[in-house]
Amino acid sequence: MKVKLGERLKELRARDNISQAKLAEQIGIDNAMIAHVERGKSLVSIPVLILLAKIFNVSTDYLLGLKDTRD
Amino acid sequence: MKVKLGERLKELRARDNISQAKLAEQIGIDNAMIAHVERGKSLVSIPVLILLAKIFNVSTDYLLGLKDTRD
Repeated sequence: MKVKLGERLKELRARDNISQAKLAEQIGIDNAMIAHVERGKSLVSIPVLILLAKIFNVSTDYLLGLKDTRD
Repeated sequence: MKVKLGERLKELRARDNISQAKLAEQIGIDNAMIAHVERGKSLVSIPVLILLAKIFNVSTDYLLGLKDTRD
């Protein structure tokens, strides 16, 4: 099963024009971790997933690539 | 932030009449882990979250308590 979190995150960051550094700061995780997630090398914890959904105002299903509509 | 995964899991297991043991077997994790999650003592990994959503045919947002509708 391919989890699309990385691509979705990259796309939403671009949409909202937020740098990896800025996002890392908002979430309280390391810059390098964001880059790693966006390259599909890591997933995140559930609390971080929920935080990302709130920051970008999308569903967790969208973030994970389970749905193609954002809400 | 209160993550409702435990209560949602318990409710869905009851709905579908699936034992903790049976669910644990389906997911490939330990029985005790399911009990722990249902008591709100642990979360799960993203791959397990996705698997649970598929097994119970609900959204991850519902499982996490971010939405009150199941789809």
